[in-house]
Amino acid sequence: MRYSRIPDETIRRLPVYLRGLILASGQGKKNISSNDLADSVGAYPWQIRKDFSYFGDFGTRGVGYNVRKLTKEIKKILKINIGQKAALVGVGNLGMAILAFPGFGIYGLDITAAFDVNPKKIGKKINNVTIENVSELRKIKRSKIKLAVMAVPRNAAQETADVLIEAGVRGILNFSPCYLVVPKKVKVITIDIAMDMARLPYYMPAG
Amino acid sequence: MRYSRIPDETIRRLPVYLRGLILASGQGKKNISSNDLADSVGAYPWQIRKDFSYFGDFGTRGVGYNVRKLTKEIKKILKINIGQKAALVGVGNLGMAILAFPGFGIYGLDITAAFDVNPKKIGKKINNVTIENVSELRKIKRSKIKLAVMAVPRNAAQETADVLIEAGVRGILNFSPCYLVVPKKVKVITIDIAMDMARLPYYMPAG
Repeated sequence: MRYSRIPDETIRRLPVYLRGLILASGQGKKNISSNDLADSVGAYPWQIRKDFSYFGDFGTRGVGYNVRKLTKEIKKILKINIGQKAALVGVGNLGMAILAFPGFGIYGLDITAAFDVNPKKIGKKINNVTIENVSELRKIKRSKIKLAVMAVPRNAAQETADVLIEAGVRGILNFSPCYLVVPKKVKVITIDIAMDMARLPYYMPAG
Repeated sequence: MRYSRIPDETIRRLPVYLRGLILASGQGKKNISSNDLADSVGAYPWQIRKDFSYFGDFGTRGVGYNVRKLTKEIKKILKINIGQKAALVGVGNLGMAILAFPGFGIYGLDITAAFDVNPKKIGKKINNVTIENVSELRKIKRSKIKLAVMAVPRNAAQETADVLIEAGVRGILNFSPCYLVVPKKVKVITIDIAMDMARLPYYMPAG
């Protein structure tokens, strides 16, 4: 099921709520109120209730949300209830950090392939993944990998995206500070660290 | 001036537009239409017009936006018209990537100090910044650094934030996958790579 009228901002917040629910579950909680969930992730209770209202009635008045049921629902909405394999392209400092990052598992995400141009890196094994030559990138098609993380230099970004898409990738997490031209069937989320940091001063008090 | 009624989402998009304007300026354009600006950054023209409408009338009908004037206005709104110094805490793979990242300058951001716990790293110079012992973190107060990037392990995150805030930091870009408890005067933007990736499958076509 695709909920096409759901605002992107709601989708952006669902993984945040998911983290709160996983935290609550770890603390042995069976139910959680929107207030407590909001507190645990730094959100607003009204926002949580509004976001969930797009998908139906998840809570019970006076009891709150069933942690296990809501976790399952959110994973289903985000389509991460089934495991999702991902490929990493670019194993420089950033790529290395991503490959070693332990936080993907709780979202059902798994980086199962990594590629680089540097002969010194090719063949090395990091976190159970052997780095391969980027010339072999097309082979991810055989593994039915639909997700990719791109941590390549800016001038290699569009070309890398083109190859990934040809190989069947439909979702790209892009760390190059550039806008990628992709067909409509492909979703790109660009993380531009400088751009995120550029928003901070706006919120800072003067002086 | 603080525009408190401006949606966070508009503030999120301003640096995106800024990148488009810098691109246009580099191409020698004096004016740019909302359509062309939208095309260059992958946004919607109506969204651009709506976002700018919060700040007054930036464009001229039939001419578009004056690139230089709009660049200046956006920088002023984001308070990055004056240069902003930042400290980096944690120089692992991710911190190293951040320290070497060339993209901060166009937003007037400059990482001028870096800290780590690892004795092997302390004293090393990366991108003109000498890595210092994290025990010296409090000294950033003397340099009037108000911005910080945190690339520390999760279990060190809250403590690091507390020290930073005590030393005068008011804006934190946080890469630890956790929610930081901070006073209201401090703005935290958390970048959780797994969380961003967890949104991708939602947008991907089935099958």
